[in-house]
Amino acid sequence: MKSHRKELWFRTPTRRAFVNITHEVEAALQESEIQEGFCHVNAMHITASVFINDNEPGLHRDYERWLEELAPHEPLDRYAHNRTGEDNGDAHLKRQIMGRGVTVAVTDGRLDFGPWEQIFYGEFDGRRKKRVLIKIIGW
Amino acid sequence: MKSHRKELWFRTPTRRAFVNITHEVEAALQESEIQEGFCHVNAMHITASVFINDNEPGLHRDYERWLEELAPHEPLDRYAHNRTGEDNGDAHLKRQIMGRGVTVAVTDGRLDFGPWEQIFYGEFDGRRKKRVLIKIIGW
Amino acid sequence: MKSHRKELWFRTPTRRAFVNITHEVEAALQESEIQEGFCHVNAMHITASVFINDNEPGLHRDYERWLEELAPHEPLDRYAHNRTGEDNGDAHLKRQIMGRGVTVAVTDGRLDFGPWEQIFYGEFDGRRKKRVLIKIIGW
Repeated sequence: MKSHRKELWFRTPTRRAFVNITHEVEAALQESEIQEGFCHVNAMHITASVFINDNEPGLHRDYERWLEELAPHEPLDRYAHNRTGEDNGDAHLKRQIMGRGVTVAVTDGRLDFGPWEQIFYGEFDGRRKKRVLIKIIGW
Repeated sequence: MKSHRKELWFRTPTRRAFVNITHEVEAALQESEIQEGFCHVNAMHITASVFINDNEPGLHRDYERWLEELAPHEPLDRYAHNRTGEDNGDAHLKRQIMGRGVTVAVTDGRLDFGPWEQIFYGEFDGRRKKRVLIKIIGW
Repeated sequence: MKSHRKELWFRTPTRRAFVNITHEVEAALQESEIQEGFCHVNAMHITASVFINDNEPGLHRDYERWLEELAPHEPLDRYAHNRTGEDNGDAHLKRQIMGRGVTVAVTDGRLDFGPWEQIFYGEFDGRRKKRVLIKIIGW
């Protein structure tokens, strides 16, 4: 059995962003030399997500608009959390819709994906340094 | 250590559907002869979900109506994604609410479930061939 | 390879509640003596969640209010599921937003967490005995 651990670092220039991290996860899997097992990828911060969906810019605009409808950033006093001095109450809610992370099967040394699956980092409170954890267990 | 991989194929006659796949996952676990480990089941397509909840038709109607409220199929021009020629923008959003997949503990050769847990395939853009991946790792 | 299994039991005095279970999961990991692997924690009931977010009471009030907006408890006849005699139709929906469970990487015998990650049990239909499953696989 082998394990491999890798962190990816982000500092998005905007408050919200979607970043395709598929190649970085594939690279980590290659480094691991693991052929069979599970790869788990998760945001290490609680105002961000890792999710799998389509690499299509229109869809990402749809997510942005929809999440803003479901959990608007403003007015800031909408969120009790913002009384702590933060302005990211909405980001903690958006992240629950999109999820903390994903588990991907590893088969024959590859991410065992359907035809359109891509892995994204979803940032909802950016402009600061944040991390994603990749952990791969297998043989 | 052993691994077992199996695909389930679907072509639902309707755009949206919930299909109970608990028996298929249990059958895959039996084939694997794995007694201890993890079983991960996920949609391989980005407009579908695998989730765990109750096998109760009223609840499935509630999910259908609620997801349609949160992310309506129409008007189609509500979604930038549909400008690509697709009409499934809503399905990519619905799938995020219901999730891509589930991890189930395997204990003594069985899915380690609470009293009412059942596994469902959630289709949000059906009438085409799509797949679910079952991957089991353990011993 | 080792596996460790533990159940946590709850009976919240209120219908809805968030309970910090981070210490209980850390204790289970110590008992397991596992240094490298995955820890999966999930609700065994379909009207409850296990999720990772911030240990901040204002945020938990925000979650409570937001989930009640997205899937109100009343009127009870809003949900077809409640025609079975239940009054928890809303709870099955709220749980899908917050998720069934989480996978946490185990590294050097610890939950491999970012700075603010804490694990919570989310109850949406309490005042009855319910369980969470902790399953750890590794070496």
